[in-house]
Amino acid sequence: MKKTYVQPIGWKNNKIRIVDQTRLPNEFCYEDLSGVSDVWKAIKKLKVRGAPLIGLAGAYGYCLGVSLLERWESAYVLKRSRILCDYLSSSRPTAVNLAWALKRMERVLRLNIGLGKAQTLSLLKKEVADIEREDKQMCFQMGTFGAGLIRTGDSLMTICNAGALATSGFGTALGVFYRAKQMGKRIKVYACETRPLLQGARLTAWELQSAGIDVTLLCDNMAADCMRTKKIKGVFVGADRIASNGDFANKIGTYGLAVLARYHEIPFYCVAPASTLDLSLHKGDDIPIEQRGPDEVTGLYFKKSIAPKGVKVFNPSFDVTPAALVSAMITEKGVIRPPFKENIKALYGV
Amino acid sequence: MKKTYVQPIGWKNNKIRIVDQTRLPNEFCYEDLSGVSDVWKAIKKLKVRGAPLIGLAGAYGYCLGVSLLERWESAYVLKRSRILCDYLSSSRPTAVNLAWALKRMERVLRLNIGLGKAQTLSLLKKEVADIEREDKQMCFQMGTFGAGLIRTGDSLMTICNAGALATSGFGTALGVFYRAKQMGKRIKVYACETRPLLQGARLTAWELQSAGIDVTLLCDNMAADCMRTKKIKGVFVGADRIASNGDFANKIGTYGLAVLARYHEIPFYCVAPASTLDLSLHKGDDIPIEQRGPDEVTGLYFKKSIAPKGVKVFNPSFDVTPAALVSAMITEKGVIRPPFKENIKALYGV
Repeated sequence: MKKTYVQPIGWKNNKIRIVDQTRLPNEFCYEDLSGVSDVWKAIKKLKVRGAPLIGLAGAYGYCLGVSLLERWESAYVLKRSRILCDYLSSSRPTAVNLAWALKRMERVLRLNIGLGKAQTLSLLKKEVADIEREDKQMCFQMGTFGAGLIRTGDSLMTICNAGALATSGFGTALGVFYRAKQMGKRIKVYACETRPLLQGARLTAWELQSAGIDVTLLCDNMAADCMRTKKIKGVFVGADRIASNGDFANKIGTYGLAVLARYHEIPFYCVAPASTLDLSLHKGDDIPIEQRGPDEVTGLYFKKSIAPKGVKVFNPSFDVTPAALVSAMITEKGVIRPPFKENIKALYGV
Repeated sequence: MKKTYVQPIGWKNNKIRIVDQTRLPNEFCYEDLSGVSDVWKAIKKLKVRGAPLIGLAGAYGYCLGVSLLERWESAYVLKRSRILCDYLSSSRPTAVNLAWALKRMERVLRLNIGLGKAQTLSLLKKEVADIEREDKQMCFQMGTFGAGLIRTGDSLMTICNAGALATSGFGTALGVFYRAKQMGKRIKVYACETRPLLQGARLTAWELQSAGIDVTLLCDNMAADCMRTKKIKGVFVGADRIASNGDFANKIGTYGLAVLARYHEIPFYCVAPASTLDLSLHKGDDIPIEQRGPDEVTGLYFKKSIAPKGVKVFNPSFDVTPAALVSAMITEKGVIRPPFKENIKALYGV
């Protein structure tokens, strides 16, 4: 882990400094968040996005929220903590990492509230740092496991951005590509642009290009043709929430890629840390899917409207990929093969 | 055929009047083409597009080119005619209708060149009118055959624009929807936006909305999820060139939709007239596929670049769908089922 990848979040004095990802690739600029509602908006508006980073941003936001409390009486603090968690959770519903991180933060508060504000805050900040450090380690481990599945000369495909910008700074699916490169494997990556908000074009193409990885951009509807004509050897994607049977939600389009990969007999890998697992859900259909507004499809980023006024729009932010279409799940503890339900249980001892 | 659909091309005095489709849906405006190079540019820049309309525009352009000849000696006229055909053919390589229409025009010239310029021109104009009238009839017939495959209440899907704007004014795939509506069938159409140039969002959504058909726009990467959650009952697409075994080239993304339709057990129909058949080609891999520039993917239509500078781009304009993924071909002579090679031969008596 010698090379430093983009750090998408951190402290700047008592504010949270983020990279505003909506401005990439045209501008790389930081924004400092000084209030909890700024954090909520930054998540909602996708200035920070990607399941692990959303979780981390939630932890930062929680810490900031607690630091801004004016009184320190247990009942009051616990009540405010609950409100804080509910509020931050409401920013985006699909990624489970947000709820997971907030739960960790709240636990630290409960256990240490008696120590007084300054010491509790210091422990909360330590918890944020732990989440961040663990995420980096997990990304590195996932990358190592995933890179083991790649051979030099391989052409690979990914969707959306599951990179440094989606995590604490290394990436899940893109972490696999970074590790492959570090191991001296020569790879070509085909990045699906990922409509409507183009995280593949704006973020993944930029990240991989910056990291010196051979990247080619394609529109989402070119994936099938690309798989066939460019002889893709593996598809690597992230995840926003994984049900206990291995079904998982990820950026809209992931499910379609999984079907196309199966048809072309290409291995399809989901790369995600334990914080993405939601063992309380039995299957993918139980995962709440965020529906977003029509403007993202009909006009945002465009000079003019690209569709007639008032046209109806189908715009789910995520879709669910059934475990049956997944070749393996790459986690920080190792590569899980089917049957997923049993093997997830075995690996996580639950 | 009571209702009048958009007329995408026609004569205006001695110029060719087209609807500039690159301006839709924001502006509906005509452009008059007075020279052959204007016609070439209009095809190249997609002001007129769609395989049958490209053919028709080629015929108009040929007629215009002949009308502009300053001398009328057989050898000279025939030489110029050849140059004219080669030049117009070079505007776009994939749709075979262009070559087919130019061949028809050239034949009329050869047979009648001795009659003198005025009379030959009048016969050429009649040939253009015949191609146009025949195209309208074929669209109506295909629409009738296709609508027979639809039940009231069906949700259907299409890609790109195979509508009035892609033909002489009724459409191939969209003609099926128009006929279904005329027959009193209640349908819902899901239109894939069709990156990079968004013909689905800009043209199909606009055309169907104008015709009072219930249309919902989706991004291309949402097709798989939409098929599953919206219970799509049929996918109808056009074609730019069909090989003798039934493999066909159409807008990039068609092949992927065919794979997704097969996985979801949804019938997948290719709707195209005889002029789209190229019996000289044995299989889809023999069809020339147009590669277009990277700017269409990285920035056109956008306020700012949506991808990092200099990023490599994969941008084929078409892909090939193998006949094995097609449920039926809907032609003006009837619905062809597999085996396509034998049944195409039988229907066209070749």
